[in-house]
Amino acid sequence: MSSNEIDTLIELMAKLPGLGPRSARRAVLHLIRKRALLLTPLADAMQEVAVTARECLNCGNVGTTDICEICASEKRANGELCVVEDVSDLWAMERAGVFKGRYHVLGGTLSALDSIGPEDLSIPKLIDRITSENITEVILALNATVDGQTTAHYIADQLEDRVRLTSLAQGVPVGGELDYLDEGTISAALSARRAL
Amino acid sequence: MSSNEIDTLIELMAKLPGLGPRSARRAVLHLIRKRALLLTPLADAMQEVAVTARECLNCGNVGTTDICEICASEKRANGELCVVEDVSDLWAMERAGVFKGRYHVLGGTLSALDSIGPEDLSIPKLIDRITSENITEVILALNATVDGQTTAHYIADQLEDRVRLTSLAQGVPVGGELDYLDEGTISAALSARRAL
Ligand SMILES: [Zn+2]
Ligand SMILES: [Zn+2]
Repeated sequence: MSSNEIDTLIELMAKLPGLGPRSARRAVLHLIRKRALLLTPLADAMQEVAVTARECLNCGNVGTTDICEICASEKRANGELCVVEDVSDLWAMERAGVFKGRYHVLGGTLSALDSIGPEDLSIPKLIDRITSENITEVILALNATVDGQTTAHYIADQLEDRVRLTSLAQGVPVGGELDYLDEGTISAALSARRAL
Repeated sequence: MSSNEIDTLIELMAKLPGLGPRSARRAVLHLIRKRALLLTPLADAMQEVAVTARECLNCGNVGTTDICEICASEKRANGELCVVEDVSDLWAMERAGVFKGRYHVLGGTLSALDSIGPEDLSIPKLIDRITSENITEVILALNATVDGQTTAHYIADQLEDRVRLTSLAQGVPVGGELDYLDEGTISAALSARRAL
């Protein structure tokens, strides 16, 4: 019904996270209708990123240089290192625009089930950076999942007595409604309650 | 935080239907991780489609030839013409694999609100095709929306006495549960009930 080139494009688009066959078909028809405004620029941008994208050799951030802008900036060398699971978490922190130090992307979490050990993540590199970058505080910004918390405890054990260790506060999200929160969050928010 | 090329790609991806900024960021990180398997092939496929995709001059289907495979096939010239709103509807009919005639894509519906009249859709072309292709039956497969049904009535008025006019049956979807159907569907299914 449609030609081979178009079917190929639909099949590839359907492999993107969050898109299935139906949304891939819709996206491709949309792209064909917006050929000059969207399809050609998108093809060019992908080609460009395919050539230029790389992981920062120091922290694991994704950018277009061997050392990312954050690691390259002397201003960010304030002794604070924020440890995240994934590049998307690093980007989320940066969007908030409040953290002024550097990051370390683990590339996942420890997982007995998937046999992911410390050497599969960038934990040895993290330990090296503590010394080489004169880190004084490590902020563990891992996800509040079982694997995330296991990983945080493992890292804390490794770094104990060498740096100040902190983690993000747990509590009610800004604008969050109690009625929609799970009991764990409410319980954490209550234990960490503060005087007004 | 990320480089300009990557930000550009994220912004373009976020313009796809069904993707927002968050899912575009996830998709781009996924693409960078699957550079050889997904990102480069996708860039190539988009480039290819940008050059080759075109609308069939006869029916409005999207393919890579001036006249699509369906219009080019003599086998499909059986006198039946299925009128659909959009190319995605044509593709959905073809996936079902049961209709053996040709299609006519209107490119939308009549809409007083958006001032879309018959000349904005391919209705004049549809009327021409009735004669030039010896059409004996027109199946109106328009969406069961107010605008879809208005358009179906308008076309029916234009073609009255010239061809047999039919429309898709309304009723309970195969595998559908009554509890999830709206009252209009249940009412239509009841009126069109058949003897066992
Ligand atoms: Zn870096
Ligand atoms: Zn055609």
